[in-house]
Amino acid sequence: MGILENPDEYYMQTALREARAAMDEDEIPIGAVIVDSTGSIIARAHNQTERLHDVTAHAEMLAFTAASEAMGAKYLPDCTLYVTVEPCPMCAGAAGWTQVGRIVYGAGDPKRGYSLLKGPVLHPKTTVTDGVLEAECTALMKEFFKKKR
Amino acid sequence: MGILENPDEYYMQTALREARAAMDEDEIPIGAVIVDSTGSIIARAHNQTERLHDVTAHAEMLAFTAASEAMGAKYLPDCTLYVTVEPCPMCAGAAGWTQVGRIVYGAGDPKRGYSLLKGPVLHPKTTVTDGVLEAECTALMKEFFKKKR
Repeated sequence: MGILENPDEYYMQTALREARAAMDEDEIPIGAVIVDSTGSIIARAHNQTERLHDVTAHAEMLAFTAASEAMGAKYLPDCTLYVTVEPCPMCAGAAGWTQVGRIVYGAGDPKRGYSLLKGPVLHPKTTVTDGVLEAECTALMKEFFKKKR
Repeated sequence: MGILENPDEYYMQTALREARAAMDEDEIPIGAVIVDSTGSIIARAHNQTERLHDVTAHAEMLAFTAASEAMGAKYLPDCTLYVTVEPCPMCAGAAGWTQVGRIVYGAGDPKRGYSLLKGPVLHPKTTVTDGVLEAECTALMKEFFKKKR
């Protein structure tokens, strides 16, 4: 899928590559990329909670920190976060602080997703698209947890 | 106030010293400490969002990462987080992932506090105490925002 044909799928494929890198490192396979208003990828990251022994080292958190560094700015209103799995409350809260313009995710997370919460988590101007390459994103998670059993 | 007389106030005083250090650096004056089951302070941190140009660099986030590093463990069920202001959804979500045993905070945050949310944010076993040295914690925030106006 080319970038012009379907940009959301194109960037989600990049996030999926990050998720697969996590899988190869025996981390929960979640990947994220952040794209600026010109379409450039300014941050890419995958879950590193095991390697860093740090439960806050989710793909999105690492990507936000890298994006702020890349932009030299605290706020990311013109950027889009692509992430293979629905953000948890921590990452959604972080997204709220960054004022990221748009969030696109693949698989929903019915146990830990931020959408379980009622109340203000994201910035009011942030828009959300879900279900992009959902099957691929879900398959990777299922494969990981099946191996762990 | 001595550690034996009122440990919560004792540790909150330490968190307040961190908050004052933030104030001196022109950061929002919020401080946090994490105490292990023996009463040792294993992490102390203050808000550094300006210095790091990173909106995720809240006192609690930095303290959780430092505590995990100090403990060599991802989970902190026997630890207590002391923080001068009620955690936001991001920090409460992080607290959930760490499974921190107890959270003690000073001032409530009626605009950004996690308690505005309905739904699972903290770990079900985490207990919360609020209002410890509330007046001092609130006064510091008011002083900061008064200077900013």
